[in-house]
Amino acid sequence: MRRPIHHHPSPRPHQPADAANASGKLAWKPGTLLAPVPPVLVSCGGAGEWKPNLITIAWAGTVCSDPPMLSISVRPERYSYALLKGLGEFVVNLPGAAQARAVDWCGVASGREHDKFAKSGLTPLPSLKVRPPGVAECPVNLECRVTQTLELGSHTLFLAEILAVQVDAALVEPGGRLALEKAGLIAYAHGHYFALGRCLGHFGWSVRKQPGGGKR
Amino acid sequence: MRRPIHHHPSPRPHQPADAANASGKLAWKPGTLLAPVPPVLVSCGGAGEWKPNLITIAWAGTVCSDPPMLSISVRPERYSYALLKGLGEFVVNLPGAAQARAVDWCGVASGREHDKFAKSGLTPLPSLKVRPPGVAECPVNLECRVTQTLELGSHTLFLAEILAVQVDAALVEPGGRLALEKAGLIAYAHGHYFALGRCLGHFGWSVRKQPGGGKR
Repeated sequence: MRRPIHHHPSPRPHQPADAANASGKLAWKPGTLLAPVPPVLVSCGGAGEWKPNLITIAWAGTVCSDPPMLSISVRPERYSYALLKGLGEFVVNLPGAAQARAVDWCGVASGREHDKFAKSGLTPLPSLKVRPPGVAECPVNLECRVTQTLELGSHTLFLAEILAVQVDAALVEPGGRLALEKAGLIAYAHGHYFALGRCLGHFGWSVRKQPGGGKR
Repeated sequence: MRRPIHHHPSPRPHQPADAANASGKLAWKPGTLLAPVPPVLVSCGGAGEWKPNLITIAWAGTVCSDPPMLSISVRPERYSYALLKGLGEFVVNLPGAAQARAVDWCGVASGREHDKFAKSGLTPLPSLKVRPPGVAECPVNLECRVTQTLELGSHTLFLAEILAVQVDAALVEPGGRLALEKAGLIAYAHGHYFALGRCLGHFGWSVRKQPGGGKR
Protein backbone atom coordinates (compact mmCIF):
# COMPACT_ATOMS: atom_id res chain seq x y z
CA MET A 1 0.00 0.00 0.00
CA ARG A 2 1.39 3.36 -0.89
CA ARG A 3 2.01 6.31 1.31
CA PRO A 4 -0.45 9.16 1.72
CA ILE A 5 -0.32 11.22 -1.41
CA HIS A 6 -1.30 14.61 -0.14
CA HIS A 7 -0.77 14.89 3.55
CA HIS A 8 -1.54 18.44 4.61
CA PRO A 9 1.69 19.71 6.10
CA SER A 10 1.65 21.66 9.32
CA PRO A 11 2.36 25.29 8.60
CA ARG A 12 5.45 26.58 10.36
CA PRO A 13 5.31 29.73 12.41
CA HIS A 14 6.82 32.91 11.06
CA GLN A 15 8.40 33.77 14.34
CA PRO A 16 9.54 32.14 17.56
CA ALA A 17 6.95 31.32 20.19
CA ASP A 18 8.20 34.12 22.42
CA ALA A 19 7.15 36.73 19.85
CA ALA A 20 3.47 36.61 20.82
CA ASN A 21 1.75 39.97 20.71
CA ALA A 22 -0.16 41.62 23.55
CA SER A 23 -3.16 39.36 22.90
CA GLY A 24 -1.01 36.26 23.27
CA LYS A 25 -1.21 35.58 19.54
CA LEU A 26 1.41 34.43 17.09
CA ALA A 27 1.36 35.12 13.37
CA TRP A 28 1.13 31.79 11.53
CA LYS A 29 1.63 30.85 7.91
CA PRO A 30 -1.66 31.26 6.00
CA GLY A 31 -3.12 27.80 5.69
CA THR A 32 -6.17 25.59 5.67
CA LEU A 33 -6.80 25.69 9.39
CA LEU A 34 -10.60 25.98 9.32
CA ALA A 35 -11.78 23.23 11.66
CA PRO A 36 -13.55 21.01 12.37
CA VAL A 37 -14.59 19.99 8.86
CA PRO A 38 -16.58 16.93 7.76
CA PRO A 39 -14.45 14.01 6.51
CA VAL A 40 -16.99 12.47 4.17
CA LEU A 41 -16.90 9.42 1.93
CA VAL A 42 -17.81 10.64 -1.54
CA SER A 43 -18.94 7.97 -3.96
CA CYS A 44 -18.71 8.57 -7.68
CA GLY A 45 -18.74 6.60 -10.91
CA GLY A 46 -21.09 3.66 -11.30
CA ALA A 47 -22.13 4.33 -14.89
CA GLY A 48 -20.58 4.46 -18.34
CA GLU A 49 -16.95 3.44 -18.31
CA TRP A 50 -16.54 4.00 -14.58
CA LYS A 51 -16.90 1.50 -11.79
CA PRO A 52 -18.13 2.93 -8.51
CA ASN A 53 -15.33 4.53 -6.52
CA LEU A 54 -14.89 6.22 -3.16
CA ILE A 55 -12.81 9.24 -2.20
CA THR A 56 -12.55 10.86 1.20
CA ILE A 57 -13.07 14.61 1.15
CA ALA A 58 -12.61 16.95 4.11
CA TRP A 59 -12.80 20.09 1.98
CA ALA A 60 -16.61 19.98 1.96
CA GLY A 61 -19.32 22.27 3.24
CA THR A 62 -22.93 23.33 2.99
CA VAL A 63 -23.22 26.36 0.71
CA CYS A 64 -26.95 27.03 0.38
CA SER A 65 -30.16 26.12 2.23
CA ASP A 66 -32.68 26.72 -0.56
CA PRO A 67 -32.03 24.97 -2.82
CA PRO A 68 -30.06 22.66 -0.56
CA MET A 69 -26.50 22.67 -1.88
CA LEU A 70 -23.08 21.57 -0.77
CA SER A 71 -19.60 21.79 -2.17
CA ILE A 72 -16.64 19.47 -2.36
CA SER A 73 -13.12 20.39 -3.47
CA VAL A 74 -11.00 17.84 -5.30
CA ARG A 75 -7.49 17.92 -6.75
CA PRO A 76 -7.53 17.33 -10.53
CA GLU A 77 -4.85 14.65 -10.19
CA ARG A 78 -7.13 12.45 -8.11
CA TYR A 79 -8.59 9.41 -9.87
CA SER A 80 -12.11 10.42 -8.85
CA TYR A 81 -11.81 13.77 -10.58
CA ALA A 82 -12.65 12.41 -14.04
CA LEU A 83 -15.56 10.41 -12.60
CA LEU A 84 -16.97 13.51 -10.94
CA LYS A 85 -16.50 15.59 -14.09
CA GLY A 86 -17.78 12.84 -16.33
CA LEU A 87 -21.02 11.96 -14.55
CA GLY A 88 -21.64 15.25 -12.76
CA GLU A 89 -23.14 13.25 -9.91
CA PHE A 90 -21.88 11.96 -6.59
CA VAL A 91 -23.08 10.89 -3.17
CA VAL A 92 -21.81 12.40 0.06
CA ASN A 93 -21.90 9.67 2.69
CA LEU A 94 -21.56 10.85 6.30
CA PRO A 95 -19.44 8.33 8.19
CA GLY A 96 -19.82 7.23 11.76
CA ALA A 97 -16.93 6.19 13.98
CA ALA A 98 -17.29 2.61 12.73
CA GLN A 99 -16.24 3.83 9.28
CA ALA A 100 -13.29 5.93 10.49
CA ARG A 101 -10.60 3.54 9.27
CA ALA A 102 -12.28 3.22 5.87
CA VAL A 103 -12.53 7.00 5.72
CA ASP A 104 -8.81 7.31 6.26
CA TRP A 105 -7.94 4.56 3.80
CA CYS A 106 -10.21 5.96 1.07
CA GLY A 107 -8.36 9.26 1.45
CA VAL A 108 -4.96 7.64 1.05
CA ALA A 109 -5.46 4.86 -1.52
CA SER A 110 -6.35 5.45 -5.17
CA GLY A 111 -9.13 4.04 -7.29
CA ARG A 112 -6.50 3.59 -9.98
CA GLU A 113 -5.12 0.68 -7.96
CA HIS A 114 -8.00 -0.55 -5.86
CA ASP A 115 -11.67 -1.43 -6.03
CA LYS A 116 -12.32 0.62 -2.93
CA PHE A 117 -15.81 -0.70 -2.26
CA ALA A 118 -14.55 -4.29 -2.35
CA LYS A 119 -11.34 -3.68 -0.44
CA SER A 120 -12.89 -1.53 2.27
CA GLY A 121 -15.78 -3.93 2.74
CA LEU A 122 -18.29 -1.13 2.31
CA THR A 123 -21.61 -1.97 0.65
CA PRO A 124 -22.96 -0.07 -2.36
CA LEU A 125 -26.39 1.42 -1.64
CA PRO A 126 -28.62 2.00 -4.67
CA SER A 127 -29.29 5.71 -5.00
CA LEU A 128 -32.72 7.24 -5.61
CA LYS A 129 -31.83 10.05 -8.02
CA VAL A 130 -28.22 9.68 -9.15
CA ARG A 131 -26.14 6.95 -10.75
CA PRO A 132 -23.31 6.55 -8.23
CA PRO A 133 -24.26 4.25 -5.35
CA GLY A 134 -24.08 5.45 -1.77
CA VAL A 135 -22.46 3.64 1.13
CA ALA A 136 -24.98 1.50 3.01
CA GLU A 137 -22.99 1.53 6.26
CA CYS A 138 -23.00 5.33 6.46
CA PRO A 139 -25.97 6.68 8.42
CA VAL A 140 -26.73 9.51 5.98
CA ASN A 141 -26.37 9.63 2.18
CA LEU A 142 -26.74 12.89 0.27
CA GLU A 143 -27.28 12.43 -3.46
CA CYS A 144 -25.87 15.36 -5.40
CA ARG A 145 -25.78 16.74 -8.92
CA VAL A 146 -23.06 19.19 -9.91
CA THR A 147 -24.30 22.63 -10.89
CA GLN A 148 -20.97 24.41 -11.35
CA THR A 149 -17.23 23.81 -11.13
CA LEU A 150 -14.60 26.40 -10.31
CA GLU A 151 -10.86 25.86 -10.69
CA LEU A 152 -9.34 27.57 -7.69
CA GLY A 153 -5.71 26.41 -7.73
CA SER A 154 -4.68 23.10 -6.20
CA HIS A 155 -8.36 22.14 -5.99
CA THR A 156 -11.46 22.34 -8.16
CA LEU A 157 -14.63 23.31 -6.33
CA PHE A 158 -17.72 21.31 -7.26
CA LEU A 159 -20.96 23.05 -6.32
CA ALA A 160 -23.87 20.64 -6.25
CA GLU A 161 -27.54 20.48 -5.45
CA ILE A 162 -28.73 17.83 -2.98
CA LEU A 163 -31.43 15.96 -4.89
CA ALA A 164 -32.25 13.11 -2.53
CA VAL A 165 -31.32 11.93 0.94
CA GLN A 166 -31.36 8.52 2.55
CA VAL A 167 -31.03 8.06 6.31
CA ASP A 168 -30.80 5.05 8.57
CA ALA A 169 -34.34 4.23 9.67
CA ALA A 170 -32.94 3.60 13.17
CA LEU A 171 -32.17 7.33 13.47
CA VAL A 172 -35.78 8.40 12.92
CA GLU A 173 -37.77 8.71 16.14
CA PRO A 174 -41.44 7.69 16.28
CA GLY A 175 -42.53 11.34 16.04
CA GLY A 176 -40.53 11.79 12.86
CA ARG A 177 -37.51 13.64 14.25
CA LEU A 178 -34.13 12.75 12.78
CA ALA A 179 -31.91 11.99 15.78
CA LEU A 180 -28.66 12.75 14.00
CA GLU A 181 -26.84 12.93 17.33
CA LYS A 182 -27.18 9.13 17.50
CA ALA A 183 -25.28 8.67 14.24
CA GLY A 184 -21.84 8.88 15.86
CA LEU A 185 -20.58 11.27 13.20
CA ILE A 186 -16.91 12.16 13.03
CA ALA A 187 -15.02 15.40 12.51
CA TYR A 188 -11.60 16.23 11.05
CA ALA A 189 -9.31 18.89 12.45
CA HIS A 190 -5.71 19.58 11.48
CA GLY A 191 -4.84 16.04 10.49
CA HIS A 192 -6.84 14.17 13.13
CA TYR A 193 -10.22 12.46 13.19
CA PHE A 194 -12.44 13.01 16.23
CA ALA A 195 -15.68 11.62 17.54
CA LEU A 196 -18.23 14.26 18.46
CA GLY A 197 -18.26 14.81 22.21
CA ARG A 198 -20.73 16.32 24.61
CA CYS A 199 -23.57 18.51 23.37
CA LEU A 200 -23.03 22.15 24.35
CA GLY A 201 -26.45 23.47 23.35
CA HIS A 202 -28.89 23.75 20.51
CA PHE A 203 -29.34 26.53 17.97
CA GLY A 204 -31.04 29.46 19.70
CA TRP A 205 -30.36 28.27 23.24
CA SER A 206 -28.63 31.52 24.18
CA VAL A 207 -31.92 33.43 23.89
CA ARG A 208 -34.37 30.84 25.21
CA LYS A 209 -36.20 31.55 28.44
CA GLN A 210 -34.35 30.18 31.44
CA PRO A 211 -36.12 27.78 33.84
CA GLY A 212 -36.28 30.65 36.39
CA GLY A 213 -38.40 32.71 34.02
CA GLY A 214 -35.76 35.19 32.90
CA LYS A 215 -34.06 35.50 29.57
CA ARG A 216 -30.38 35.72 28.97
CA MET B 1 -34.10 39.81 22.43
CA ARG B 2 -35.67 38.51 19.31
CA ARG B 3 -36.20 34.94 18.30
CA PRO B 4 -33.82 33.10 16.04
CA ILE B 5 -34.36 34.39 12.54
CA HIS B 6 -33.43 31.44 10.45
CA HIS B 7 -33.63 28.26 12.39
CA HIS B 8 -32.94 25.38 10.08
CA PRO B 9 -36.12 23.32 10.18
CA SER B 10 -35.90 19.57 10.45
CA PRO B 11 -36.86 18.02 7.16
CA ARG B 12 -39.83 15.69 7.47
CA PRO B 13 -39.61 12.20 6.07
CA HIS B 14 -41.39 11.34 2.87
CA GLN B 15 -42.70 8.11 4.23
CA PRO B 16 -43.42 6.40 7.55
CA ALA B 17 -40.56 4.85 9.46
CA ASP B 18 -41.73 1.36 8.61
CA ALA B 19 -41.10 1.98 4.93
CA ALA B 20 -37.35 1.43 5.22
CA ASN B 21 -35.79 -0.36 2.26
CA ALA B 22 -33.71 -3.53 2.37
CA SER B 23 -30.68 -1.53 3.53
CA GLY B 24 -32.64 -0.13 6.48
CA LYS B 25 -32.75 3.29 4.85
CA LEU B 26 -35.53 5.84 4.62
CA ALA B 27 -35.88 8.45 1.92
CA TRP B 28 -35.67 11.88 3.53
CA LYS B 29 -36.45 15.34 2.24
CA PRO B 30 -33.40 16.82 0.48
CA GLY B 31 -31.81 19.18 2.97
CA THR B 32 -28.67 20.62 4.45
CA LEU B 33 -27.68 17.57 6.46
CA LEU B 34 -23.94 17.64 5.83
CA ALA B 35 -22.41 17.40 9.31
CA PRO B 36 -20.46 18.21 11.34
CA VAL B 37 -19.72 21.69 10.05
CA PRO B 38 -17.69 24.47 11.71
CA PRO B 39 -19.78 27.09 13.56
CA VAL B 40 -17.40 30.01 13.22
CA LEU B 41 -17.55 33.59 14.41
CA VAL B 42 -17.04 35.73 11.32
CA SER B 43 -16.01 39.32 11.98
CA CYS B 44 -16.62 41.97 9.37
CA GLY B 45 -16.79 45.75 9.09
CA GLY B 46 -14.34 47.89 11.02
CA ALA B 47 -13.69 50.47 8.33
CA GLY B 48 -15.54 53.13 6.37
CA GLU B 49 -19.11 53.52 7.56
CA TRP B 50 -19.18 50.14 9.30
CA LYS B 51 -18.43 49.35 12.90
CA PRO B 52 -16.99 45.91 13.53
CA ASN B 53 -19.67 43.22 13.63
CA LEU B 54 -19.88 39.49 14.23
CA ILE B 55 -22.00 36.85 12.54
CA THR B 56 -22.01 33.13 13.22
CA ILE B 57 -21.68 31.01 10.11
CA ALA B 58 -21.97 27.22 9.96
CA TRP B 59 -22.14 27.13 6.17
CA ALA B 60 -18.35 27.40 5.88
CA GLY B 61 -15.65 25.15 4.51
CA THR B 62 -12.14 24.93 3.16
CA VAL B 63 -12.21 25.02 -0.65
CA CYS B 64 -8.56 25.08 -1.73
CA SER B 65 -5.17 24.26 -0.23
CA ASP B 66 -2.94 26.31 -2.56
CA PRO B 67 -3.72 29.13 -2.40
CA PRO B 68 -5.35 28.53 0.98
CA MET B 69 -9.01 29.43 0.55
CA LEU B 70 -12.25 29.00 2.41
CA SER B 71 -15.85 29.83 1.73
CA ILE B 72 -18.71 31.21 3.80
CA SER B 73 -22.36 31.40 2.75
CA VAL B 74 -24.51 34.29 3.94
CA ARG B 75 -28.14 35.23 3.39
CA PRO B 76 -28.42 38.64 1.68
CA GLU B 77 -30.94 39.80 4.31
CA ARG B 78 -28.35 39.50 7.07
CA TYR B 79 -26.92 42.79 8.38
CA SER B 80 -23.38 41.53 7.81
CA TYR B 81 -24.00 40.98 4.11
CA ALA B 82 -23.43 44.62 3.15
CA LEU B 83 -20.30 44.75 5.32
CA LEU B 84 -18.89 41.66 3.63
CA LYS B 85 -19.74 42.97 0.18
CA GLY B 86 -18.56 46.47 1.00
CA LEU B 87 -15.12 45.69 2.43
CA GLY B 88 -14.51 42.35 0.74
CA GLU B 89 -12.64 41.28 3.86
CA PHE B 90 -13.52 39.26 6.94
CA VAL B 91 -11.95 37.18 9.68
CA VAL B 92 -12.99 33.60 10.44
CA ASN B 93 -12.53 33.07 14.16
CA LEU B 94 -12.57 29.44 15.32
CA PRO B 95 -14.39 29.28 18.65
CA GLY B 96 -13.63 27.05 21.58
CA ALA B 97 -16.22 25.71 23.97
CA ALA B 98 -15.81 28.83 26.14
CA GLN B 99 -17.25 30.86 23.24
CA ALA B 100 -20.16 28.51 22.52
CA ARG B 101 -22.84 30.76 24.01
CA ALA B 102 -21.48 33.79 22.14
CA VAL B 103 -21.42 31.71 18.96
CA ASP B 104 -25.08 30.92 19.37
CA TRP B 105 -26.06 34.48 20.28
CA CYS B 106 -24.13 35.99 17.35
CA GLY B 107 -26.08 33.68 15.05
CA VAL B 108 -29.43 34.78 16.46
CA ALA B 109 -29.03 38.50 17.19
CA SER B 110 -28.51 41.16 14.52
CA GLY B 111 -25.87 43.83 14.17
CA ARG B 112 -28.72 46.17 13.24
CA GLU B 113 -29.77 46.14 16.89
CA HIS B 114 -26.64 45.30 18.83
CA ASP B 115 -22.96 46.14 19.10
CA LYS B 116 -22.13 42.46 19.15
CA PHE B 117 -18.51 42.85 20.28
CA ALA B 118 -19.61 44.95 23.26
CA LYS B 119 -22.65 42.90 24.18
CA SER B 120 -20.96 39.51 23.86
CA GLY B 121 -17.93 40.68 25.82
CA LEU B 122 -15.62 39.51 23.04
CA THR B 123 -12.43 41.51 22.45
CA PRO B 124 -11.47 42.91 19.04
CA LEU B 125 -8.06 41.62 17.93
CA PRO B 126 -6.16 43.84 15.49
CA SER B 127 -5.71 42.00 12.23
CA LEU B 128 -2.45 41.76 10.32
CA LYS B 129 -3.67 42.01 6.72
CA VAL B 130 -7.36 42.98 6.70
CA ARG B 131 -9.44 45.78 8.19
CA PRO B 132 -12.00 43.82 10.26
CA PRO B 133 -10.66 42.87 13.69
CA GLY B 134 -10.58 39.27 14.80
CA VAL B 135 -11.81 37.90 18.11
CA ALA B 136 -9.02 37.75 20.67
CA GLU B 137 -10.70 34.98 22.72
CA CYS B 138 -10.87 32.60 19.75
CA PRO B 139 -7.78 30.38 19.51
CA VAL B 140 -7.39 30.76 15.73
CA ASN B 141 -8.12 33.73 13.48
CA LEU B 142 -8.10 33.40 9.70
CA GLU B 143 -7.89 36.72 7.85
CA CYS B 144 -9.61 36.50 4.50
CA ARG B 145 -10.09 38.55 1.35
CA VAL B 146 -13.01 37.81 -0.95
CA THR B 147 -12.04 36.65 -4.42
CA GLN B 148 -15.48 35.83 -5.83
CA THR B 149 -19.15 35.81 -4.84
CA LEU B 150 -21.83 33.51 -6.22
CA GLU B 151 -25.55 33.96 -5.66
CA LEU B 152 -26.87 30.45 -5.16
CA GLY B 153 -30.41 30.99 -3.90
CA SER B 154 -31.12 31.64 -0.23
CA HIS B 155 -27.41 32.20 0.31
CA THR B 156 -24.55 33.99 -1.39
CA LEU B 157 -21.27 32.09 -1.42
CA PHE B 158 -18.18 34.16 -0.63
CA LEU B 159 -14.96 32.53 -1.80
CA ALA B 160 -11.94 34.02 -0.08
CA GLU B 161 -8.21 33.65 0.16
CA ILE B 162 -6.66 33.26 3.61
CA LEU B 163 -4.06 36.03 3.79
CA ALA B 164 -2.91 35.81 7.38
CA VAL B 165 -3.44 33.65 10.43
CA GLN B 166 -3.08 34.34 14.11
CA VAL B 167 -3.03 31.54 16.68
CA ASP B 168 -2.88 31.46 20.46
CA ALA B 169 0.77 31.21 21.40
CA ALA B 170 -0.24 28.67 24.07
CA LEU B 171 -1.17 26.22 21.29
CA VAL B 172 2.32 26.22 19.78
CA GLU B 173 4.59 23.54 21.20
CA PRO B 174 8.31 24.22 21.75
CA GLY B 175 9.21 22.33 18.56
CA GLY B 176 6.87 24.53 16.54
CA ARG B 177 3.90 22.17 16.13
CA LEU B 178 0.45 23.72 16.33
CA ALA B 179 -1.44 21.61 18.88
CA LEU B 180 -4.88 22.46 17.56
CA GLU B 181 -6.37 19.55 19.52
CA LYS B 182 -5.84 21.65 22.67
CA ALA B 183 -8.01 24.48 21.34
CA GLY B 184 -11.29 22.86 22.41
CA LEU B 185 -12.91 23.57 19.05
CA ILE B 186 -16.63 23.01 18.58
CA ALA B 187 -18.72 21.44 15.84
CA TYR B 188 -22.28 21.98 14.65
CA ALA B 189 -24.56 19.18 13.53
CA HIS B 190 -28.27 19.38 12.75
CA GLY B 191 -29.07 22.21 15.15
CA HIS B 192 -26.73 21.25 17.98
CA TYR B 193 -23.28 22.37 19.07
CA PHE B 194 -20.81 19.70 20.18
CA ALA B 195 -17.39 19.60 21.75
CA LEU B 196 -14.89 17.45 19.90
CA GLY B 197 -14.54 14.07 21.61
CA ARG B 198 -11.91 11.38 21.53
CA CYS B 199 -9.32 11.25 18.77
CA LEU B 200 -9.95 8.30 16.44
CA GLY B 201 -6.71 8.51 14.48
CA HIS B 202 -4.57 10.78 12.37
CA PHE B 203 -4.49 11.22 8.61
CA GLY B 204 -2.80 8.18 7.07
CA TRP B 205 -3.08 5.98 10.15
CA SER B 206 -4.86 3.25 8.22
CA VAL B 207 -1.71 2.53 6.19
CA ARG B 208 0.96 3.08 8.82
CA LYS B 209 3.02 0.12 9.95
CA GLN B 210 1.54 -1.60 12.95
CA PRO B 211 3.66 -1.99 16.10
CA GLY B 212 3.98 -5.72 15.28
CA GLY B 213 5.69 -4.87 12.00
CA GLY B 214 2.79 -5.64 9.65
CA LYS B 215 0.74 -3.29 7.56
CA ARG B 216 -3.00 -3.16 7.30
